Amino acid sequence: MNKEVYLDNSATTRPYEDVIRYMSETALECYGNPSSLHKKGIEAERLVKKARVIIARSLNAQDSEIIFTSSGTESNNLAILGYLEANARKGRHVITSAIEHPSVLEVFRYLSEKGYGVDFVKVDGNGVVDLDMLESLIRGDTALISIMVVNNETGTIQPVEEIAKLRDARNPDAVIHVDAVQAFGKVRLNPSKSGIGLMSVSSHKIHGPKGVGALFVDKNIRIKPLFHGGGQESLLRSGTENVPGICGFGLAAEIALENMNRSYDHVKKLKKLLLESLSKIEGRYRVISPESALPYIVNIAFPGVKSEVLLHHLEERNIYVSTGSACSSRKKMFSHVLEAMNVPPAEMDGAIRISFSCENDESDVEAIVEALSEIVPKLQNIRRGPR
Amino acid sequence: MNKEVYLDNSATTRPYEDVIRYMSETALECYGNPSSLHKKGIEAERLVKKARVIIARSLNAQDSEIIFTSSGTESNNLAILGYLEANARKGRHVITSAIEHPSVLEVFRYLSEKGYGVDFVKVDGNGVVDLDMLESLIRGDTALISIMVVNNETGTIQPVEEIAKLRDARNPDAVIHVDAVQAFGKVRLNPSKSGIGLMSVSSHKIHGPKGVGALFVDKNIRIKPLFHGGGQESLLRSGTENVPGICGFGLAAEIALENMNRSYDHVKKLKKLLLESLSKIEGRYRVISPESALPYIVNIAFPGVKSEVLLHHLEERNIYVSTGSACSSRKKMFSHVLEAMNVPPAEMDGAIRISFSCENDESDVEAIVEALSEIVPKLQNIRRGPR
Repeated sequence: MNKEVYLDNSATTRPYEDVIRYMSETALECYGNPSSLHKKGIEAERLVKKARVIIARSLNAQDSEIIFTSSGTESNNLAILGYLEANARKGRHVITSAIEHPSVLEVFRYLSEKGYGVDFVKVDGNGVVDLDMLESLIRGDTALISIMVVNNETGTIQPVEEIAKLRDARNPDAVIHVDAVQAFGKVRLNPSKSGIGLMSVSSHKIHGPKGVGALFVDKNIRIKPLFHGGGQESLLRSGTENVPGICGFGLAAEIALENMNRSYDHVKKLKKLLLESLSKIEGRYRVISPESALPYIVNIAFPGVKSEVLLHHLEERNIYVSTGSACSSRKKMFSHVLEAMNVPPAEMDGAIRISFSCENDESDVEAIVEALSEIVPKLQNIRRGPR
Repeated sequence: MNKEVYLDNSATTRPYEDVIRYMSETALECYGNPSSLHKKGIEAERLVKKARVIIARSLNAQDSEIIFTSSGTESNNLAILGYLEANARKGRHVITSAIEHPSVLEVFRYLSEKGYGVDFVKVDGNGVVDLDMLESLIRGDTALISIMVVNNETGTIQPVEEIAKLRDARNPDAVIHVDAVQAFGKVRLNPSKSGIGLMSVSSHKIHGPKGVGALFVDKNIRIKPLFHGGGQESLLRSGTENVPGICGFGLAAEIALENMNRSYDHVKKLKKLLLESLSKIEGRYRVISPESALPYIVNIAFPGVKSEVLLHHLEERNIYVSTGSACSSRKKMFSHVLEAMNVPPAEMDGAIRISFSCENDESDVEAIVEALSEIVPKLQNIRRGPR
């Protein structure tokens, strides 16, 4: 069997072995309930606090501005629904983009059912939100604007700071939430400085454990909880803390933070190598991710190929990529992101997402390019000349 | 340092080493996202399915009736809020008891703010709900009744099947939710046969990982999600599945199920030994947990002693117990459970909860009894005669 080539890191990552070791130790040795008044509880609480400090520092935030949750999805829901519940007087108009993750889009659909005025900003061919349209949509009763930092299907980076400036000019009372799940650990994030009130991050996209996320809530912003109960997480997220998971998230974030620049440069080289090597493939393709995209995500269309078929040919060679977004693949037909970017159907049909992590290396790129150069021409029915 | 004597198993348990080993293997080897279409995704999905089958079997339920969540608290919130959201026509009256866990009580307080009619059933001196009062409270517009199976502070077992019969007689349309977090893995549960529509369970109370719970939803009952997003868990609980956590929960449940009777008998003996040995202590005490309580939980009051002081004296000897309920200790002053049972203030003030697991043994009981027999008389200012 060939070496496993995992290029689906935007769906989820393999956790670091150090993270798993630390989690196991924590689970077995510091197994107390942080709410317990005795030493076993206090040591567990300290571990949660330690992780909170790391996550806060990684966002240039205060410890008290970090709420641990069970996932990026929960963070997005808590941010949007929790903010609107706590700030009913700010208005019932909300704005998001057409290319958000389902855990934002579906919340907006729910809000629409509940009678909120919901507007979706369009994006251009690169998947960047239309700032003119956004500006025109912001109203006096706009309570919240939710825009992702990095798109999970294309890697497109949104002009979050410019969006905050438009908000400042049009309605300073509107709060901005960003889904930073794909950006966290890969680019510097400084929500307070950027004018962001709420920011969602997740652990399992940065080689941390599944089942843990966090929400940054600016100290001047009030939200209400989705869960009611024991009052953990500053009364905003009840339920016994997932101490080992939170510890694992903290360690993964610490590693990501330390290596951020090095990882970025490394992955940038991998993307460059991929794009250069692709051009040698006999067969049609188009790189959908813009040049300016985060290099961790490369969306490529192979017209005339069914992406699912391509995916399965690759998995036979122990190479793993995604069609569209893994997080929502069970619900949808066409990618709503590529549709919003006006990608032609033949390209959408044949689009795959290659997503890197710092753990990938050049041999992974070589493996997928070799595989693609064998598979794609066959699927595109391209006759090769005599060798 | 003395051997660690952990007698706070109703707050949380130490996970089994086999559980942690299995979780680590899963995390490192089967790290795919269950939503991914490739083999790494499918193998992760299979692991979730395997755990679902175990949890379903443990409740005599169908696989499709089990939703994985992040905690017992989330399960309770999803059950109650999700049911009411999906069944608005069933009425806006709800009933619970005065001795529920905060993750139920606080949801009912929230419902009261939202304009629901909320009634709290009283309990008797043993902490058992007053069935006559409950019967009289059930109305035509009662949508939901939420009663816990085993109380977390006293071990009192509620007559859940009788409650279901009262419901059948008074309003068969009212659905019953039970918080079975303290019962799961310790007594047989068969929600469908007992007339229960919704049942919450949790992993970390049965030597499984923190950060995982489940909700049984009878196949004929519709609920709505608390989170919106990718549509995982039959569209009822979005967010990437915590695969290793779910696997660990499944294994812990399997172990609990296999050993249920043996563990019960073992813990029953520990309780008997504890109560017999306690009578040798020079000092006043009263066992608050009724004789009929689940033997895993023994609530004992030492009048004239501050329970926190006693707890700290015990922790100095590496013995860990709880005052009141760990899950809510950071929010409240007096235990709402003991108050509802009309326990006199002097007793509430000096009540500790000793909670066993199958992992405890007679030496643990001997250790706490020895410690109590030294500490309690001193704190109660009882002069000892010459030895």
